[in-house]
Amino acid sequence: MADSRIEPIRWDNGAVVILDQTRLPQEEVYLRCERVAQVAEAIRSLRVRGAPLIGITAAYGLALAAQGKAAGMNIRLREAAQILGATRPTARNLFWAIDRMMGRAATGATADQLLAEAVAIHQEDAETCRLIGENGRSLIPQGATVLTICNTGALATGGEGTALAVIKAAHASGNPIKVIACETRPLLQGARLTMWELLRAGIPATLITDSMAGTCLQRGMVEVIIVGADRIACNGDSANKIGTYSLAVLAKHHHVPFYVAAPMSTVDLGLPDGEHIPIEERHADEVRGFRDYPVAPEETEVFNPSFDVTPADLITGIITERGVARAPYEQGW
Amino acid sequence: MADSRIEPIRWDNGAVVILDQTRLPQEEVYLRCERVAQVAEAIRSLRVRGAPLIGITAAYGLALAAQGKAAGMNIRLREAAQILGATRPTARNLFWAIDRMMGRAATGATADQLLAEAVAIHQEDAETCRLIGENGRSLIPQGATVLTICNTGALATGGEGTALAVIKAAHASGNPIKVIACETRPLLQGARLTMWELLRAGIPATLITDSMAGTCLQRGMVEVIIVGADRIACNGDSANKIGTYSLAVLAKHHHVPFYVAAPMSTVDLGLPDGEHIPIEERHADEVRGFRDYPVAPEETEVFNPSFDVTPADLITGIITERGVARAPYEQGW
Repeated sequence: MADSRIEPIRWDNGAVVILDQTRLPQEEVYLRCERVAQVAEAIRSLRVRGAPLIGITAAYGLALAAQGKAAGMNIRLREAAQILGATRPTARNLFWAIDRMMGRAATGATADQLLAEAVAIHQEDAETCRLIGENGRSLIPQGATVLTICNTGALATGGEGTALAVIKAAHASGNPIKVIACETRPLLQGARLTMWELLRAGIPATLITDSMAGTCLQRGMVEVIIVGADRIACNGDSANKIGTYSLAVLAKHHHVPFYVAAPMSTVDLGLPDGEHIPIEERHADEVRGFRDYPVAPEETEVFNPSFDVTPADLITGIITERGVARAPYEQGW
Repeated sequence: MADSRIEPIRWDNGAVVILDQTRLPQEEVYLRCERVAQVAEAIRSLRVRGAPLIGITAAYGLALAAQGKAAGMNIRLREAAQILGATRPTARNLFWAIDRMMGRAATGATADQLLAEAVAIHQEDAETCRLIGENGRSLIPQGATVLTICNTGALATGGEGTALAVIKAAHASGNPIKVIACETRPLLQGARLTMWELLRAGIPATLITDSMAGTCLQRGMVEVIIVGADRIACNGDSANKIGTYSLAVLAKHHHVPFYVAAPMSTVDLGLPDGEHIPIEERHADEVRGFRDYPVAPEETEVFNPSFDVTPADLITGIITERGVARAPYEQGW
């Protein structure tokens, strides 16, 4: 189904072309970034988002910086790495991709070779998504309803997704699953992006506000919860979109399995536990309203952390391209 | 401070005048209802909301129906009771107020006497709010941060509120408390109404999305949770705004006390437990968008329950005008 393929990023003749996800699902607008600053702005403003896709975007951003004269390329790359690395603090994949690209540059790679490396990161992520789907799909019982949060699909990765790849793989294998998608305030990635992807994929899905997950679990409407991750510490503690931690606590209270799905590039083996994961806080206006639509009084004080950390002891298993890791995670990577 | 007084409803020369809460905080618009159908529409559309205020509004609606010729008054009252009783199924106070007014009518009360009864219900609720505040304020530790959801203040009652009355009473007694207010999707009563009230009252408050309550508890930012109720069963199970149940589960997980504050008119002694509380489900567009601002794809399926039920075993105590009830609730009313 070529016409239903979602392409959130591509390299096009010296530029990084990005699907502006802030305008979905109402408008499908592509941005052509010819400068690193535009790529950085796109990441910072969540025009591209999702930890794996942020990593891929940063890789293309560095490939962009490498274009042009060979003289000064390393200086341009170092500047670009700094700009791109300052966009969003939580997603591990961002730093992983920058490290990989800069490591390649350090071996004397040319601009063409750096572009090839970015394309390789992109293509490998697609294969990683496929493997995550394969490794996870049997964890969804026959005919189950899966609850998820945020967007962890084709719009978040270089392939079919992480948690959504598991859902799509189960559906593709003939399992008549259903999905309950949390809308994911404040930026509504669940309502805007996940519903858009699931409708295109023909997977039955129901949208709820984040506050309705509790009553869904209480009523026995959910058999399994699967979420993505932005950074996973060595012990399995997982940072993901704000609201994930509440879902994990509810899952424990209701004895419902709670899985995290993410590529190994999200795992930060250098961090012993979740306490050390930097949590991004964003602008108050995201909570005071939606997009440019104000709701709360202007002078309202806001706390707006973009992520929370789910401790490993609330996680049933972590689905990666290598398999399904289980506690104690330190020994399983 | 007469100028900061909030008057969500009043009787004015043969009409019920209602502050249209759907337009707050951006606009302060009053609606003059001269027919029962307008009053019913105001309740159904949440122009007036909050269980105690819904009861008061229904009482004024019946007083309105009683106006005019004495002949046919009882028929008009029965029709009005049916129309008003069909507006919202969960709020116990609605049926309590209708029963009280119709009981008064059955004793042969005149239209003037029925208006006096509605005014009495309104004034008694103000005193009830004051007592709830007094009875609850010592439950808030010195300098504590209180988390709450929805609006349970002057905009929800005939006085200072239920949960918000406790918060206001603690503040007025010199306790330097702070409030964290959940925005309360889908209709954002926390962001729009509670923040508006707390700013006017000069009580320090921070707004979060409902999905951020978990991380606030996990970070130790919350000492106590206090919420309102729309209907309380005999055993203490309490229906309240959707999202309340998740807060109760989080409170248990983090060993934080969880109180419900409500007048006795919210307690439905005829219901043995929460399973029997009718839960209103509202239109999908409330979840698909943000007020009239569309977000999710148009064809999105939605589950939109307005309330959830918190079982009594997750409730530390129920604050009423009579005191603080504790389990077993059956014996405490």
